[in-house]
Amino acid sequence: MKAARPVLDRGRPADYIPALACADPQRFGMALATVDGEVHGVGDWREPFSVQSISKLFALALALSHGGNALWQRVSREPSGNPFNSLIQLESEQGIPRNPFINAGALVVTDALLSLTGDARGAVVDFLREESGNPAIDTDRAVAESEAGHGHRNAALAHFMASFGNLHNPVDDVLGHYFAHCSISADCRDLALAGGFLARHGLRADGSRLLSRGDAKRINAVLLTCGTYDAAGEFAYRVGLPGKSGVGGGILAIVPGRGAVCAWSPGLDAAGNSVGALAALEDFTERSDWSVF
Amino acid sequence: MKAARPVLDRGRPADYIPALACADPQRFGMALATVDGEVHGVGDWREPFSVQSISKLFALALALSHGGNALWQRVSREPSGNPFNSLIQLESEQGIPRNPFINAGALVVTDALLSLTGDARGAVVDFLREESGNPAIDTDRAVAESEAGHGHRNAALAHFMASFGNLHNPVDDVLGHYFAHCSISADCRDLALAGGFLARHGLRADGSRLLSRGDAKRINAVLLTCGTYDAAGEFAYRVGLPGKSGVGGGILAIVPGRGAVCAWSPGLDAAGNSVGALAALEDFTERSDWSVF
Amino acid sequence: MKAARPVLDRGRPADYIPALACADPQRFGMALATVDGEVHGVGDWREPFSVQSISKLFALALALSHGGNALWQRVSREPSGNPFNSLIQLESEQGIPRNPFINAGALVVTDALLSLTGDARGAVVDFLREESGNPAIDTDRAVAESEAGHGHRNAALAHFMASFGNLHNPVDDVLGHYFAHCSISADCRDLALAGGFLARHGLRADGSRLLSRGDAKRINAVLLTCGTYDAAGEFAYRVGLPGKSGVGGGILAIVPGRGAVCAWSPGLDAAGNSVGALAALEDFTERSDWSVF
Amino acid sequence: MKAARPVLDRGRPADYIPALACADPQRFGMALATVDGEVHGVGDWREPFSVQSISKLFALALALSHGGNALWQRVSREPSGNPFNSLIQLESEQGIPRNPFINAGALVVTDALLSLTGDARGAVVDFLREESGNPAIDTDRAVAESEAGHGHRNAALAHFMASFGNLHNPVDDVLGHYFAHCSISADCRDLALAGGFLARHGLRADGSRLLSRGDAKRINAVLLTCGTYDAAGEFAYRVGLPGKSGVGGGILAIVPGRGAVCAWSPGLDAAGNSVGALAALEDFTERSDWSVF
Repeated sequence: MKAARPVLDRGRPADYIPALACADPQRFGMALATVDGEVHGVGDWREPFSVQSISKLFALALALSHGGNALWQRVSREPSGNPFNSLIQLESEQGIPRNPFINAGALVVTDALLSLTGDARGAVVDFLREESGNPAIDTDRAVAESEAGHGHRNAALAHFMASFGNLHNPVDDVLGHYFAHCSISADCRDLALAGGFLARHGLRADGSRLLSRGDAKRINAVLLTCGTYDAAGEFAYRVGLPGKSGVGGGILAIVPGRGAVCAWSPGLDAAGNSVGALAALEDFTERSDWSVF
Repeated sequence: MKAARPVLDRGRPADYIPALACADPQRFGMALATVDGEVHGVGDWREPFSVQSISKLFALALALSHGGNALWQRVSREPSGNPFNSLIQLESEQGIPRNPFINAGALVVTDALLSLTGDARGAVVDFLREESGNPAIDTDRAVAESEAGHGHRNAALAHFMASFGNLHNPVDDVLGHYFAHCSISADCRDLALAGGFLARHGLRADGSRLLSRGDAKRINAVLLTCGTYDAAGEFAYRVGLPGKSGVGGGILAIVPGRGAVCAWSPGLDAAGNSVGALAALEDFTERSDWSVF
Repeated sequence: MKAARPVLDRGRPADYIPALACADPQRFGMALATVDGEVHGVGDWREPFSVQSISKLFALALALSHGGNALWQRVSREPSGNPFNSLIQLESEQGIPRNPFINAGALVVTDALLSLTGDARGAVVDFLREESGNPAIDTDRAVAESEAGHGHRNAALAHFMASFGNLHNPVDDVLGHYFAHCSISADCRDLALAGGFLARHGLRADGSRLLSRGDAKRINAVLLTCGTYDAAGEFAYRVGLPGKSGVGGGILAIVPGRGAVCAWSPGLDAAGNSVGALAALEDFTERSDWSVF
Repeated sequence: MKAARPVLDRGRPADYIPALACADPQRFGMALATVDGEVHGVGDWREPFSVQSISKLFALALALSHGGNALWQRVSREPSGNPFNSLIQLESEQGIPRNPFINAGALVVTDALLSLTGDARGAVVDFLREESGNPAIDTDRAVAESEAGHGHRNAALAHFMASFGNLHNPVDDVLGHYFAHCSISADCRDLALAGGFLARHGLRADGSRLLSRGDAKRINAVLLTCGTYDAAGEFAYRVGLPGKSGVGGGILAIVPGRGAVCAWSPGLDAAGNSVGALAALEDFTERSDWSVF
């Protein structure tokens, strides 16, 4: 927290929708959940925020848990090397997104989860509630509507993939569920607990298996190489952990075998990652011996 | 007609929607309308067909006639050098389409025409009826619905431009009018007459002015450099006239100062231009002295 | 000339090599040569200037005259839709340049001409001397050396095509001949006379045939669609003639069946075309009835 | 070794130069060097092979050790998301390569090392000799000459970056040193020992400091996200260690704090990584607990 405080002024909240633009960049919170379910928090760690792209991680895990590896024929697992909403690579690669964490990839994942469960949004909400034990977690309808109202770029991505046959549900349904799970509100404690299954090599909080050990390792690998937009290399260097960021200001990082850490502060850097959360996670891995490098 | 007959077998009708795929590739017609309104025709010249992209030419002329040159700030006038539905160039040029005859550009033109007239489809239909004197010209609803049902690529283009602020009407409205004016049915005679204003340097059939002389020249120049998808150079060489093709198999060519020629045959080459219409127009300009080169 | 004078201040000489940067933007000349060899000139029409890309037109004609249509398997004939030195399209199209007037295409043409004649530079110089009757035409060695010293982009293009097997001579030889024929000095009269073969449908000044009627038409078509960098559509509209520009400030335009016009003024617009030459040619075609539209 | 043996048939040696194409795909070796200098080996671990791109890792470390972080203004540190020799991204990013392990980036690193030491090839050879204690390590001249003779793509990259001012030495010198350090022959033992400084957080075998702890961590992070061409995500999943591969069939992987492992077998997969070395490293990290995930 001492590391984050001085840099908070350097970030700016996401401004493409009013609901996010109004966030106070001075807010900062952080929570650590061990594999055993022990939780520690500082600052605004119980303040709910918009999880945004962090939900992509849970949608991916749930789609894999329900449908297995068939998903990997519809989305690749390599870094994109382009800003997260680029259409260029999607065109040259015939509608197959580079990885499940760019927007195009998350739309395919959402489409798959919708086919598998009938309710992609509900599946993510239920999972977060169960892992965190917090029944209050839910979609913020105002944010979801605001996203939908500013979602032309995502609609373009979705229609473009549909033109290649890589969406199976109606475009509007997929977009609706996508915006809805990105608009979930949760706090640092909730997300750190919900990320535990990746630290426990696939086991949920109750000890049941969500994913095979291999699938959990796979997700961690994709997080490290693709989890933070166009700054995965920088994140790997500074934090050295698999992590997923969202433009709501949250970053969820996984320490395999040990636990999960979620930091939050609304101010973003040019790449769309939270300035304060990044600084706090960097400081955390430097002080602990939890970096992988 | 003798030139077209032997090559008809080499083309294949557009197959992305059933309504076009069923066209008989052995059909061929051609009509010539002089600037004075004299008309000559051969073959199936009175057989209505789907005008498809040829409508883009009329939409452009009408948008310019109502709104003037402000349109050119929303769409450029240079060849695209990419297949007609590419998103790559659109992304690198910030949502400004390369020219009004690629799909993205025609969507912007349709959007402008919709803002200016309240009914883009109606404006094109009315114009074609008046210039041809044929009140039966109308949108083929079955084709329009079929287009809409297979229109993910165009929807992606429209949402993508909307994300840059380059569509002013709701995306679904723009797409609806676009599909509707592309789905107009007309015959070679109708189109040759309706294209006369470009041969008359901007004057309509009744002598009233639709466009300034400069605007008419502009459209002819854009037709020559951009009117036939990714084969403008080939068309310029073989036919040597400003022209616009459609995947319904029609090609409308302008002979400035003299008249307009429309040829039609459903079989298309790899670039999407009618094999028979192209051969007939090439033969026509070789026999007459009407090529510009 | 009256049309050109007021706009001369708006252009800036090419500044990538000192030899061109020093040109006086107030200089302006223009010459018209009829198909019969009659010549008229105004202003600095006898002032030699660096022909630059205009030489690409002669290199192409000579390569076709010696080698026939095999060349078209190594270079396409469609507009590029990208700035004239872009590598992107070249990569996606496997080392086949879009047309013979972008730099990559002209390098392939130079390579072919070198293979066919043993001396690409010499072939162009000889042709210009013979058609103009001016034995003083020659490469400006200082300009050629300066080009070579700043030619990393062209070297990249040449090596890139060589990696696809689309250059047959050593890269340095091709670059040497390319820079040498681009560095030829000639005046408006010389170039207007030398361009006459395209107005005479392939016949040289002495009545002998350089190109078939079809090849001459082909070159005119490619000039109209691709001859003025990324502004072919604008040139087609404003001038309405096949034309080729060079960053030395010259533009050579062809009036099929009638003659050739060369205008020159060193100041360039953003697309690399001479501001003064463009204005003069536009005025010329407006006053005469020589536009093709 | 048991894991590698069954898959050796699936790979094919690099075939772009004869010197590599002749390698026997049944050869396989592997060596492990701990941070204390203890070495274990199996199979053909003392058989020298062409290090190829693995040398990029040493060139980077040496350039950073001599010149510090100024290098990072000339090369980025993010995954490229494109095949390793693509020019597209280089063009859109103004001649700044995406990372030091794609060819363009390694050329910039070589240029910097050449400026800093006067002998980029010699610097890499000397370092490998000193860390491994093997004075026989040297450039294979036949391979280097063969590379140079097939190096048009790299020459294109080099000239292209020079056109942006991002090479400071003559292009031919940079290419010469680049081909020379890629053509070094060394064996698994040599490379595992030479990679030890990254496992020792920057300390050389003799305990002296080559790089700061931060720079060593940086290199490991870039290796994990960018070290294996277009398959970094797959490598992160299967092996879970920072690693660098070469088309000679070698892969050098770093286990931070513990040691370095080098595996070699000439047969490559479609992404250019050794099939046998990859399988052996995957098996190794599964049996040990050395994966980072």
